[in-house]
Amino acid sequence: MATMQRSDPWSIDVALIGCGDHARLDLLPCLTQIEGVRIDAICDTDEKHLSATSALVRGALTYQDYRVLLAERESLGAIVVAATPQVHSDIAGLAMARGVHVFVEKPPAASTPELTRLAGMAAEKNIITKVGHNLRHSAAYLELCNVVDPGTATIFDVRYITSGPRGDRWNLNSPIRSFLLSHAIHVVDLVLHALGEPVAVSANACHFENGGLLVSGRLSFPNGRLSTIVIGDVGTSFQFDAWAMSSEGLIVHIDSLRSVWCKGLSIKGRRWSEVWTPRPLEAGHKLAGYAGELEEFFAAIASGGRSSPSLAEEIATYKVIDEIHAQIQ
Amino acid sequence: MATMQRSDPWSIDVALIGCGDHARLDLLPCLTQIEGVRIDAICDTDEKHLSATSALVRGALTYQDYRVLLAERESLGAIVVAATPQVHSDIAGLAMARGVHVFVEKPPAASTPELTRLAGMAAEKNIITKVGHNLRHSAAYLELCNVVDPGTATIFDVRYITSGPRGDRWNLNSPIRSFLLSHAIHVVDLVLHALGEPVAVSANACHFENGGLLVSGRLSFPNGRLSTIVIGDVGTSFQFDAWAMSSEGLIVHIDSLRSVWCKGLSIKGRRWSEVWTPRPLEAGHKLAGYAGELEEFFAAIASGGRSSPSLAEEIATYKVIDEIHAQIQ
Amino acid sequence: MATMQRSDPWSIDVALIGCGDHARLDLLPCLTQIEGVRIDAICDTDEKHLSATSALVRGALTYQDYRVLLAERESLGAIVVAATPQVHSDIAGLAMARGVHVFVEKPPAASTPELTRLAGMAAEKNIITKVGHNLRHSAAYLELCNVVDPGTATIFDVRYITSGPRGDRWNLNSPIRSFLLSHAIHVVDLVLHALGEPVAVSANACHFENGGLLVSGRLSFPNGRLSTIVIGDVGTSFQFDAWAMSSEGLIVHIDSLRSVWCKGLSIKGRRWSEVWTPRPLEAGHKLAGYAGELEEFFAAIASGGRSSPSLAEEIATYKVIDEIHAQIQ
Amino acid sequence: MATMQRSDPWSIDVALIGCGDHARLDLLPCLTQIEGVRIDAICDTDEKHLSATSALVRGALTYQDYRVLLAERESLGAIVVAATPQVHSDIAGLAMARGVHVFVEKPPAASTPELTRLAGMAAEKNIITKVGHNLRHSAAYLELCNVVDPGTATIFDVRYITSGPRGDRWNLNSPIRSFLLSHAIHVVDLVLHALGEPVAVSANACHFENGGLLVSGRLSFPNGRLSTIVIGDVGTSFQFDAWAMSSEGLIVHIDSLRSVWCKGLSIKGRRWSEVWTPRPLEAGHKLAGYAGELEEFFAAIASGGRSSPSLAEEIATYKVIDEIHAQIQ
Repeated sequence: MATMQRSDPWSIDVALIGCGDHARLDLLPCLTQIEGVRIDAICDTDEKHLSATSALVRGALTYQDYRVLLAERESLGAIVVAATPQVHSDIAGLAMARGVHVFVEKPPAASTPELTRLAGMAAEKNIITKVGHNLRHSAAYLELCNVVDPGTATIFDVRYITSGPRGDRWNLNSPIRSFLLSHAIHVVDLVLHALGEPVAVSANACHFENGGLLVSGRLSFPNGRLSTIVIGDVGTSFQFDAWAMSSEGLIVHIDSLRSVWCKGLSIKGRRWSEVWTPRPLEAGHKLAGYAGELEEFFAAIASGGRSSPSLAEEIATYKVIDEIHAQIQ
Repeated sequence: MATMQRSDPWSIDVALIGCGDHARLDLLPCLTQIEGVRIDAICDTDEKHLSATSALVRGALTYQDYRVLLAERESLGAIVVAATPQVHSDIAGLAMARGVHVFVEKPPAASTPELTRLAGMAAEKNIITKVGHNLRHSAAYLELCNVVDPGTATIFDVRYITSGPRGDRWNLNSPIRSFLLSHAIHVVDLVLHALGEPVAVSANACHFENGGLLVSGRLSFPNGRLSTIVIGDVGTSFQFDAWAMSSEGLIVHIDSLRSVWCKGLSIKGRRWSEVWTPRPLEAGHKLAGYAGELEEFFAAIASGGRSSPSLAEEIATYKVIDEIHAQIQ
Repeated sequence: MATMQRSDPWSIDVALIGCGDHARLDLLPCLTQIEGVRIDAICDTDEKHLSATSALVRGALTYQDYRVLLAERESLGAIVVAATPQVHSDIAGLAMARGVHVFVEKPPAASTPELTRLAGMAAEKNIITKVGHNLRHSAAYLELCNVVDPGTATIFDVRYITSGPRGDRWNLNSPIRSFLLSHAIHVVDLVLHALGEPVAVSANACHFENGGLLVSGRLSFPNGRLSTIVIGDVGTSFQFDAWAMSSEGLIVHIDSLRSVWCKGLSIKGRRWSEVWTPRPLEAGHKLAGYAGELEEFFAAIASGGRSSPSLAEEIATYKVIDEIHAQIQ
Repeated sequence: MATMQRSDPWSIDVALIGCGDHARLDLLPCLTQIEGVRIDAICDTDEKHLSATSALVRGALTYQDYRVLLAERESLGAIVVAATPQVHSDIAGLAMARGVHVFVEKPPAASTPELTRLAGMAAEKNIITKVGHNLRHSAAYLELCNVVDPGTATIFDVRYITSGPRGDRWNLNSPIRSFLLSHAIHVVDLVLHALGEPVAVSANACHFENGGLLVSGRLSFPNGRLSTIVIGDVGTSFQFDAWAMSSEGLIVHIDSLRSVWCKGLSIKGRRWSEVWTPRPLEAGHKLAGYAGELEEFFAAIASGGRSSPSLAEEIATYKVIDEIHAQIQ
């Protein structure tokens, strides 16, 4: 005879707010793989998104208005939000007011003051927050960190070229601000994760005929540590490279998140490198970091681990973005 | 106010039988992404597997005995099975007797006569069957097929090296048979998918001190088409390469399922190739083919498309395996 | 009966001055492959270098003092010089005074005023000069230029990491100047060749514990074109990458001078790139550009083509180096 | 004052017979880099080849008839021959009769009996001979040998695809024989160098509409060692891959002679490989093995080292070719 499965030792009711492609294809499959996570409700203003997502999560209630959801679902322990910066702020504020933990996609807010206000609220209410910077959790970056402790890296350079989107979005009335909050934010987060807070920022931009933008930036850190970043939305496909250098000259290169090259340690000689590649049949969302970021967030709720970057930690990233913004305008 | 989501236009109750790592990590996330699929029940003799899987599928009933499950779950439309060859046969037989469609992992049976018996039963009962040969659905192989129609390929070579398992398993009392049914079966399926049924098979084996095996085989096809295969369980990690050649000499090379090289078509000149790589942030199970194989199976049930290889089509693969077996003993 | 071969339609007597490893292994084999070039004399203060080189060039006279060589070898049409910056200036001056054409390795002079003086002399005497910037002639860079006309490129970035030498050399009494004249000069030449003369230069440096240096620089060009350069002597092996971007967003990437990736043009789709690789059995000095730079120089002498960069063109490169020098001190 | 260089401690007069592209571009630059080698004479029936080569070797006498050359140049110590198989035999016979050492390009003879006759003559006259199998001396293969001693390899597979030439040549009246003596000979030599003489050979061929040929072969060696070879002239560019496997399952893969991958030894874990790549600025003929094969030959003459494969050692290669020939006809 069949028996209904007993509840897990630990479980939490979660609402997924914003059910677009990223939420449905990248986040949802990871959520359903975390033990203890019960997707209690989903929410999207768009009926089609809501319906497509609902078909994948049997038993979850559906909402079109997150205010109603937050008001009604009393058992909620956490929300996972993937919407627009202004909506992120609003939802996060409402959820934190209720004591609900918040995982929010980047950008978590449209401005630094707004982000600072939210971070203050999280501190006050003792809320666990996390901004969805998946690159920190990507398999390639984790392998890099195993080889060179970013805390001791002398150099950390990133080259990040996407194929868009371009131009103004999110009602920011600024293509440059849109660019910085949607593209540059990934790179700045990673650099700050690796090297800490910079002491100086320098940047210049090239504007393309096709509306695209390319920013060349340089961040200086205490003790002369340096980061060179190139960020563009002018490519025809997404390309990502990063290089860390240890103080001994060991170079670790992430090539498109698909391989990690380590140059300078091989016992076989100078022309031998070591290279990591994922398993050919690697499946799931570990490579891109979507699994890891959500696992870390819920582990922090369940057992008190670290969830990073919190809204408070994100402020440093916004300040660098503001500085780049000022320089390239 | 929240509303429970209406049922989809099409839906089917599915049981997942066998909840080991492959089922839980590779198949389950794909099942939960197919609209209309309702995981009604899960089954495993191992309590731990059952419990871990249950935590991810809210509402599914749990069973430890598939006979009980098949007897009790009257609404079942299909089963997805990932167990051992003898159990595959047994479950498939019981399910088909009830009119339930069957997706079964390879190897679907321990012997060719047994497979033939099952295929006959499927034909008689008009059951949709599919053996889980995910490589056919891998992104890299699909890209290859876009470039060279395998039906017109002159050559299709595969090099497949795994790191194990080695030795006897599944109570087959034969390390060679175990090797052929767990490793060679992938390669033979792909070659037959590309070139059809061979007219002659030739093989030789090298036995390693560490218990490993490497088989070098050659399959001849009508019109002189040729396939050279090298299959081993002696590596330290999984490596997969395949080469197809068109009658004009165009070579398409799958390198570790992570890139596809096309040599001979570039307008830029002879030393230019074209190469496909997945998106750096590609997430999910499309690369490995786990998503595609299950989608095809359920699409065939929902709307009558093709589900391949069926148990009947798998017989040709078993015959080649038997021939290799006879030659390398 | 044997016959002595008639002299070529065109021939020139050449002296190779400086017979160290670079001259003997990189330049000499190219010189002996250029029709019409007769190596009349070789010169090195080091007996061992002279003797080793002499064994490879039957019939060439040997000198230890280039002043004596230049005084005695009246038939000389050109010299190929590979020594130190101060010696380069001195030899070039003496040769040009005699009307002898000059191919000189970089750096051609220790300072910008000295270089300017030499360039003036070349103009006055109508001498053909060329500085040995082999990267301009490397197979990879030529392929890049075939795909994106550097004259229309919007972006040209270079990442250049060597394993040394480090520290002060050539009696320059400045490790930074030594770094700039031996390493950065390659990169600056290539960027200026691609984008022309910059309107602004910005740079910062990171000093390594092991004495190494890494410079992060940014050059701005008319119409907002931009170049980001990273140059270091802190690696464990030589690594070279360059990226050019057309105004349409086509990206061409030179990966270690061994492959050229072209992203954004493939008719097969967005995830397909085109990639150039040299022939597996490519032999000789074409890949590195040593053959091409010497061929261009002698072709200019023989038939009046262009030989670039001349000493005069090199001045722009020195000015950028001076600007970087000022900023990172 | 200039002084003529004293003669080396050791020197030898050499004739280059056959001055086609391979001789002029691949062999000659290596000859001029070997200390002690004096190119005394060159020979080609084609005036154009002779003249182009003569312009590069000042002082060498030129001949159009190798019989005259061999009769007249009394000081000759060795010849380097690059012509056709029948001419190879004839020249080698004449030279050995005079006691002159012989480096001959492959194929050294049109048939096994002819090769056996020449090998007997070399033994009788105590002549140092070497067949120009450059792949043995390629940088990539030497790196492979450093990692896996081919003498202990269990498996050695080669995949060798060229873009031609195709069809009958050298008056052999057999496209298959032409294919085997011009293409397969490289692969068979390498396999025999790695694994020794085979105990059994099995082969099959696919004939292409465009006149091309692809051979799939399998060689068995004592103790169950195995080699799978795929050789074709049907590509659009040259591609070369080789895999050696140690008895412990370490795999070393030569990828297009441009990188060597070593899988299974890294201390970093299973997904880390070690990879060798040449220096980006690697110049000269070391990569392709042209420098090494000639250096070995002259070192054997100068100081009695090993020169391999000799004509006698080449016989085993011809026997395998004959066996493949018999099977694919």
